Amino acid sequence: MSLIVQKYGGKSLADADKIRQVSRRIATAREQGNQVVVVVSAMGGSTDGLIQLAGQITDSPDSREMDVLLSTGELVSCALVVMALQTLGEKAISLSGFQAGIRTDTGHRKAKIASIASDRVKQELDKGNIVVIAGFQGITDSMDITTLGRGGSDTTAVALAAQLEAVRCEIYTDVDGIYTANPKFAPKARRLNEIEYDEMLELASYGAKMEPRSIEIAMHYGVPVLIASSLTEGPGTLIHRGADMTTPSKRTVGELRQHVRSIAVDKNVAEIAVLGINDRPGIAAAIFEPLAEANVSVDIIVSSSGSEGTTDFSFTVKEDDLKSALKIVEPVAKEIGCRSVSGSTGLAKISIVGTGMQDAPGYAAKMFRALSKANINIDVITTSEIRITCLVDENKVEEAVRVLHDTFELDKVK
Amino acid sequence: MSLIVQKYGGKSLADADKIRQVSRRIATAREQGNQVVVVVSAMGGSTDGLIQLAGQITDSPDSREMDVLLSTGELVSCALVVMALQTLGEKAISLSGFQAGIRTDTGHRKAKIASIASDRVKQELDKGNIVVIAGFQGITDSMDITTLGRGGSDTTAVALAAQLEAVRCEIYTDVDGIYTANPKFAPKARRLNEIEYDEMLELASYGAKMEPRSIEIAMHYGVPVLIASSLTEGPGTLIHRGADMTTPSKRTVGELRQHVRSIAVDKNVAEIAVLGINDRPGIAAAIFEPLAEANVSVDIIVSSSGSEGTTDFSFTVKEDDLKSALKIVEPVAKEIGCRSVSGSTGLAKISIVGTGMQDAPGYAAKMFRALSKANINIDVITTSEIRITCLVDENKVEEAVRVLHDTFELDKVK
Repeated sequence: MSLIVQKYGGKSLADADKIRQVSRRIATAREQGNQVVVVVSAMGGSTDGLIQLAGQITDSPDSREMDVLLSTGELVSCALVVMALQTLGEKAISLSGFQAGIRTDTGHRKAKIASIASDRVKQELDKGNIVVIAGFQGITDSMDITTLGRGGSDTTAVALAAQLEAVRCEIYTDVDGIYTANPKFAPKARRLNEIEYDEMLELASYGAKMEPRSIEIAMHYGVPVLIASSLTEGPGTLIHRGADMTTPSKRTVGELRQHVRSIAVDKNVAEIAVLGINDRPGIAAAIFEPLAEANVSVDIIVSSSGSEGTTDFSFTVKEDDLKSALKIVEPVAKEIGCRSVSGSTGLAKISIVGTGMQDAPGYAAKMFRALSKANINIDVITTSEIRITCLVDENKVEEAVRVLHDTFELDKVK
Repeated sequence: MSLIVQKYGGKSLADADKIRQVSRRIATAREQGNQVVVVVSAMGGSTDGLIQLAGQITDSPDSREMDVLLSTGELVSCALVVMALQTLGEKAISLSGFQAGIRTDTGHRKAKIASIASDRVKQELDKGNIVVIAGFQGITDSMDITTLGRGGSDTTAVALAAQLEAVRCEIYTDVDGIYTANPKFAPKARRLNEIEYDEMLELASYGAKMEPRSIEIAMHYGVPVLIASSLTEGPGTLIHRGADMTTPSKRTVGELRQHVRSIAVDKNVAEIAVLGINDRPGIAAAIFEPLAEANVSVDIIVSSSGSEGTTDFSFTVKEDDLKSALKIVEPVAKEIGCRSVSGSTGLAKISIVGTGMQDAPGYAAKMFRALSKANINIDVITTSEIRITCLVDENKVEEAVRVLHDTFELDKVK
């Protein structure tokens, strides 16, 4: 009997009807002869309700208590999904993160899974139960409740699939797969049947909805992940190791030759420029160490020679983090005696991603030429082996997606 | 430093303002130099909301899953109370039933506390924390979440007070104490400064709002329990052992002489009559054993000789239980060959309670005379050492309360 892990997000569980619909899908997987572990998020909107409640009490809630509060959302949905499964005649049982043995570090509100003691889950599967587990939560060694932060239920699902050696982790959501680009920007965008882990990791880091953390875990343990819609019966997109012998590739010969796989966009970007630094060793560390300590992640960093032998730095942060980043950088900049510090918004990152790019030159030139022809200025450029990213004006980014989608003919399965 | 356990009900925690108000009261107790453990119920109305949610999925929810669902309500309120305490500058931490070490039997939805492993609670108190614990819930030996059933948070509070050897358990609610009668029925009703455990136990069993189980635990361990309002600063009513040397009685000399302490009313009553039984040994067992197995509690039982050498039985059950009780009794009655079985509603129990009654005769006669004078028929009578109960017409019971309150002059501190 094969073991499948399924994960359902909050929008798929927003009311009793949707819970019933999800339960029918789970029951089908069970009746096809699989063992099924289900990971659920909180019912759509319920987490916001809890955050609002806390907001009525305090502006700066304690993160440990916030985790106690937020963890209740997933408990509610896992109990309700089990009830719905039981009305369909299925044997099912709910488990909290704690009961499912999900141990985390102590980083409240952004905890990381440290280990999974899956004895109870296995026991319940052996009894013939569908096991429905509260996602997004775990427990520390000292028995305190934690939550995993954004995208945490995906991480729970993938980590459980890895631990239980599931044949597949199926992530059901409100989109029906991974596309060549956001269909809202590029009407000709096309769903991909499959994508490789490293491609997906770049997409996730550069704008796609999934959290990179869950892709990293899937990649590390080789868990095939299917992204599909909870509302339709479409085939979705399978994220897997391209050359994995145990998971036969569904990629057509044409797809194998297609070197750009998908275009990602991230509008949550701000740029900080630190100008006129009298360069000496340790300057970069002086700026970036306090940012790292404050958990502000810095993305594109560009350093260039300024006037009169000084150096300029510019780097991007999440737009949400701009205020707190400036608060950290400004005193440091003063101390090291630089000319000016400024923050700017209204920017977006556009990336082309594809494993095929690493052994075929000319993609960057083709990308820059296409954007320039469309009068779209490129602010900064950064690349990985399988990705090229340009920072452009936020107002131009949707046009840029269309231009690049056409340039690389992503609507065609070549 | 004295340890106090406080318990707040759902109505006292119904919104952010009330939670802030409760927190100020808790902070005051802490600042007076006490260690404070707080037990909270779910926010008013939230439990009903969860029950409704389950009702949209199924008519007969699994009791284990219902416990998972319902236990979330108390987690929400304990996290919010801690946040409110922290805004007041207090050190506080929330604990779930599981984290507080509250172990129960496996009786889902009506579990009984089996033991309390209070190490974590003591650790947190030692760290200077106010410890806010989710009431009404516990965990079984196999780590399944249970709820304690009606009045469960009171039981949590009293059991914790006993285990932690608290000087007092304070139960804050929407009434400001125990009265000589329900003030809605008897306008002259008067709050009692104190009452003895066994009196309170009779009142609780015969109509007062508290669950007998929590009084039993308090009595067994000698925990003084204060019932008071969460909204006002009134002194409340202290439930304690009258002759307890360690808790000096606040009872005035006048109150000591007052033999009827309070009048209790219970309208949740139905009567089942089994008539014309050919009496032989084992008949009573044949009727009452299956009721006990079905968890239907039977209260007043009267057996009398019927016509032609047969026997009649009548007994009361909770009105809520009438339907299920009849379903059990009817086939049994058929089997033992009785003439008829019938159920009737529209009844109420009225009881006078007082420890002073046990060594002073004449109370029963005085009660019956007063009711008869007011043209109130007594259906059945039952007594304990410190209680006399009459079954009367439900429509007459409020008048009966007024009559008896006057007869025994309960408005006066004699």
